[in-house]
Amino acid sequence: MAKVVSGFDDIKSKEIGPAIILIDPQLGNNIGSAARAMLNCGLKDLRLVRPRDGWPNASAVKMASGATEVLNNTKVFDNTLDAVSDLNLVLATTARMRDLSKTVLTPKKAADWLTSHNAHGGRSGILFGPERSGLVNDDIVLADAVINVPLNPKFSSLNLAQAVLLMGYEWFQNSIKSKTVGQETERTMAAKVSEREYFYERLESELDKSGFLYPDHLAPTIKKNLRSMFNRTGLTQQEVRTLHGILTALTNPKN
Amino acid sequence: MAKVVSGFDDIKSKEIGPAIILIDPQLGNNIGSAARAMLNCGLKDLRLVRPRDGWPNASAVKMASGATEVLNNTKVFDNTLDAVSDLNLVLATTARMRDLSKTVLTPKKAADWLTSHNAHGGRSGILFGPERSGLVNDDIVLADAVINVPLNPKFSSLNLAQAVLLMGYEWFQNSIKSKTVGQETERTMAAKVSEREYFYERLESELDKSGFLYPDHLAPTIKKNLRSMFNRTGLTQQEVRTLHGILTALTNPKN
Repeated sequence: MAKVVSGFDDIKSKEIGPAIILIDPQLGNNIGSAARAMLNCGLKDLRLVRPRDGWPNASAVKMASGATEVLNNTKVFDNTLDAVSDLNLVLATTARMRDLSKTVLTPKKAADWLTSHNAHGGRSGILFGPERSGLVNDDIVLADAVINVPLNPKFSSLNLAQAVLLMGYEWFQNSIKSKTVGQETERTMAAKVSEREYFYERLESELDKSGFLYPDHLAPTIKKNLRSMFNRTGLTQQEVRTLHGILTALTNPKN
Repeated sequence: MAKVVSGFDDIKSKEIGPAIILIDPQLGNNIGSAARAMLNCGLKDLRLVRPRDGWPNASAVKMASGATEVLNNTKVFDNTLDAVSDLNLVLATTARMRDLSKTVLTPKKAADWLTSHNAHGGRSGILFGPERSGLVNDDIVLADAVINVPLNPKFSSLNLAQAVLLMGYEWFQNSIKSKTVGQETERTMAAKVSEREYFYERLESELDKSGFLYPDHLAPTIKKNLRSMFNRTGLTQQEVRTLHGILTALTNPKN
């Protein structure tokens, strides 16, 4: 294990491990257990969106069993978009696809994506929905791909902290493996969520002006499908700039 | 997933999956969470050696979240030897080796042993020690090999149910592997190349009109990059129709 220890210290996991983002978590117990599972796997960036019982939370501290460095650095957000806006790769854990067309990854494959992405300096995060209901489509569309854990189809609902552990475990196994494995093909830096969102909003604004987002009651679905389509492709920063250029050209032709 | 379901039923997991044996478990909560994690992974044979708070246990029922078929079949033993006497292969989870010379397996390697063993009709089980102290040597010596989970060396103590989940997860991935190989994730019909090309040509024609494909010598590169971006996303037929609609809307606004 000695080599693992020193290797682990070298890679500064805080900077390169994925952020864990819990949306509408209900129980402090689960947040604390998730924090413990994260630190077991060397993950330290915990983000909470609208924790039901507020933050900080005494039950979370108790269940974290000493993972205080995770709890002390936990950030709280009002909405999912703010929680992921600095990330370049976002994966969403969900049992059901709910009419969105997204790449579906196993935890192992997802860990490969995260490891490869982090190796190129990008920041990544994994979304987890609330205990009972799971993620809603508005959150899933923000993701580049979804993660589906192959489990007993007759009893597949994982406890929240258990789901966090599985992802952390697969990531950690990769992170100690990747030191001996060759680098992946180089690729350009993925755009941040905030950069993508700015383009989507500009596109929507132009589509609205042109009458495309009509009738009104269909507009939210159209917007969701557009984001889903573009997010799936893992847009680079250069591509987002190109899309802006296209939008400008089509709406303000020079001739 | 339909094929997974039937494959899973076929293998009669109750008979061939490893038994989970908890030695001196203290908290009913943890036993219940372990039962839930087991059923998530299709494991149903739970054995308890000297549960501190007796059995059955109301906290366990609460935390099992409906994994009653595991709890109802749980067997209780006075000592570890009785709990494992019908098994042909016993693995012990432990963080420390305590002066015993044993083969050390990762969870993944352990799952390979279990799967291979079960395929030959043998019965297997995995020992887990009490929450705080872990397994004692008297129990570890009963095992054919020990399992050590590679985790953050500075914070490696896993919650009991989390440890059960990791082993169940690796076992389940192995048990379904052969049945799911070659299966693609179900998704909406991808657009044909000819359908995509027609859209790209229309887009390029509009971009050309608008002056975006200028200067001429860069046009081929811009076109290539656009195709590359859209093709990467695996456009569906519906999405190609949407893109046509967007192009029409942006170039021929209604107002």
